[in-house]
Amino acid sequence: MRANLTPDLALAARLFDGLAERGFDGIGITRDAYGPGEQAAHDLVRATAEGLRLETDIDPAGNLYMTLPGRDRAAKRLILGSHLDSVARGGNYDGAAGVLAGLAVVGGMVEAGWQPARDITVLALRAEEAGSWFPTSYPGSRAALGRLPAEALAVRRLDTGRTLAEHMRALGFDPDAVAAGGGRLGPENTAAYVEVHIEQGPVLDSEQIPVGIVTGIPGSRRLRDARVLGEYNHSGATPRRYRADAAIALAELAHRLDDHWAALETQGHALVATFCVLGTTDDAGFTKIPGKARFQLDVRSVQPGSVDAMMDRLHRLIPGIEARRGVRFVLGEETASAPAPMDPGIQAGLAAAAAAAGVACRSMASGGGHDAAAFAAAGVPAGMLFVRNQNGSHNPNEAMRPEDFAAACAVLMRWAAGAAG
Amino acid sequence: MRANLTPDLALAARLFDGLAERGFDGIGITRDAYGPGEQAAHDLVRATAEGLRLETDIDPAGNLYMTLPGRDRAAKRLILGSHLDSVARGGNYDGAAGVLAGLAVVGGMVEAGWQPARDITVLALRAEEAGSWFPTSYPGSRAALGRLPAEALAVRRLDTGRTLAEHMRALGFDPDAVAAGGGRLGPENTAAYVEVHIEQGPVLDSEQIPVGIVTGIPGSRRLRDARVLGEYNHSGATPRRYRADAAIALAELAHRLDDHWAALETQGHALVATFCVLGTTDDAGFTKIPGKARFQLDVRSVQPGSVDAMMDRLHRLIPGIEARRGVRFVLGEETASAPAPMDPGIQAGLAAAAAAAGVACRSMASGGGHDAAAFAAAGVPAGMLFVRNQNGSHNPNEAMRPEDFAAACAVLMRWAAGAAG
Repeated sequence: MRANLTPDLALAARLFDGLAERGFDGIGITRDAYGPGEQAAHDLVRATAEGLRLETDIDPAGNLYMTLPGRDRAAKRLILGSHLDSVARGGNYDGAAGVLAGLAVVGGMVEAGWQPARDITVLALRAEEAGSWFPTSYPGSRAALGRLPAEALAVRRLDTGRTLAEHMRALGFDPDAVAAGGGRLGPENTAAYVEVHIEQGPVLDSEQIPVGIVTGIPGSRRLRDARVLGEYNHSGATPRRYRADAAIALAELAHRLDDHWAALETQGHALVATFCVLGTTDDAGFTKIPGKARFQLDVRSVQPGSVDAMMDRLHRLIPGIEARRGVRFVLGEETASAPAPMDPGIQAGLAAAAAAAGVACRSMASGGGHDAAAFAAAGVPAGMLFVRNQNGSHNPNEAMRPEDFAAACAVLMRWAAGAAG
Repeated sequence: MRANLTPDLALAARLFDGLAERGFDGIGITRDAYGPGEQAAHDLVRATAEGLRLETDIDPAGNLYMTLPGRDRAAKRLILGSHLDSVARGGNYDGAAGVLAGLAVVGGMVEAGWQPARDITVLALRAEEAGSWFPTSYPGSRAALGRLPAEALAVRRLDTGRTLAEHMRALGFDPDAVAAGGGRLGPENTAAYVEVHIEQGPVLDSEQIPVGIVTGIPGSRRLRDARVLGEYNHSGATPRRYRADAAIALAELAHRLDDHWAALETQGHALVATFCVLGTTDDAGFTKIPGKARFQLDVRSVQPGSVDAMMDRLHRLIPGIEARRGVRFVLGEETASAPAPMDPGIQAGLAAAAAAAGVACRSMASGGGHDAAAFAAAGVPAGMLFVRNQNGSHNPNEAMRPEDFAAACAVLMRWAAGAAG
């Protein structure tokens, strides 16, 4: 790598400020997907890219491509990307950091007058935050890859009630073309997709490491509407043997399953399992034995076998609890997603770049889902760099130190210059 | 006992029908304490007593005394009583069955032209259902006993927001006299208080026994607003060792405490322990590790040592869970009540009466609280007869078979004729 290739961190800093100013909602940052918030971010980023004289382009789904042309325009391109939407009342870094890291890297190349051998595209994706806006996974990146099924265009934004297609159309995009499936990106024209993202978890911060190299995005099995049915009875007048206490049955299930998770970890499994919601319902009250309880369960791992080990145990525990406690479990619909392993060559390349840049890093599984999973699923070699951050994500207190962002940009610059040089 | 002393069950049946008609709220039965519902029941019962030519009287708190005069008016009287209020949308039997059993017994004496040696008073008490109306224990019976502290008159009815004193005054009663403490009843003038009540639990129905003889009303230790404080984090991105999951900490506590209850039962302890409310709060949601949980705990036993054994275990379990799971338990205020043992002589007398009447019965602890506890606390020998019932209590499906009510009345008649003969 040429010694004078350094990321334009000042440009990224200006963009973070500009995004924060445009996205501040009085409490946190809101950049609503396919709404004014996300659009303002796209407009700002696009203007900056045009200032750098990058080629800019927008696909039918509204994803923004900002390309530094390579010497060989026919060669497969590199993509540095992430999303620009945020959750409602979230922070300024989740998503945006990846787009801005790409611009800092490409901006540094422009500044140095360095032309890559192949195109490098900074990609600003749409609508990644499914929990806040459109309840479907990765509509922006799947549309870019030509893999968004037409029915996904009919999902409604949780706050406006309008469909994804309606939202696209209102911003001048073309949902019909998206439904027709003509994506711009795929393994035939894309050498790699690399996404910088804040970690969203405490691992790097606790271990005092600035950057993580992601091994994969976990698969999951999830219960979102599970119930335990027992019988409401008087808490004073009903002896133990006559009870059908739904809450204590659920407590037993959760506690035993949690013990099993601990045991799996000692056996070398890496997974997370969370009862996001657990407990009695609104009918509960003093002097009543809970006749009903409900729970949500989220089990994730990069190894499908680890997820299955938990769900198998769940199914083995339930009959005994039902028989002993006189209750019935109604698990409801289970949803599942496959894990998306990151490309081993990209992981190795990022590790070598970090070593060369003198940046400490560790390998780690992602916890949450990311657009990189959609690229991996489409057969595009994908990788991710996590940046140490504080206070989690999806909240106004989300934080990221500038020096950690700089470390990630340094790694990304070395890797991109090598991969496109 | 004279062979022709039989309870007037037809009178009781007419009164059950009349009460149901007046109390029906469209879903269940509502006889609101110190409100129109309870008052209508008192009016009906009083008119019936006057038809039987009983002496009727109302004390400053509105309790209704319906007395069959004995040969010796100065002798300590027997009281057969219970309350006439119901919970909101409850059933027709909780409370009323005890007053109507008393009237059936005394009505049978009147019909037979039988005069007891001492006064027998059927007592219709006020406002026993603390959970629905005035959140204070037994204001009616405590006022009758001159033991209602003045501050209890300041509690507000949960639905109207008006104080107990205001409600009394609106019906023409005299809260100032109640506050002055001049009760009518006490050990100096009352030989016994016996209360018939539906069981409210499944024991008699499951064991196919029509009548229970109550050994005591349990004491309790209760937590009504306990909390577990952890930390909200991303359910995907936060490994096990970095979690502070309030819900799983609570599940462990509840499950372990429930195990301890089971162990205490095998050691001969008789108690009940219920997490009436248990679980995550409204902030919980998918992909979040619960940072907060809350619970209500109700532990009861006739033996204070059994209650203490549970609460001691709770306090011993918490530090370990806090240390292992990184959470903090905030138990809030604990309320406690002392158990009220029923008089052994009355228990023996009721058992002898049941045997003589050919009614199968068993001894059992009460689950809930009853006015009999206030009499026992005041030093008046107290006893209770439980009547087998179905579908619990405090709900519109509450049920009681006429033949079981008849069995309880037969026992009460024999006992009262013997105790007052």
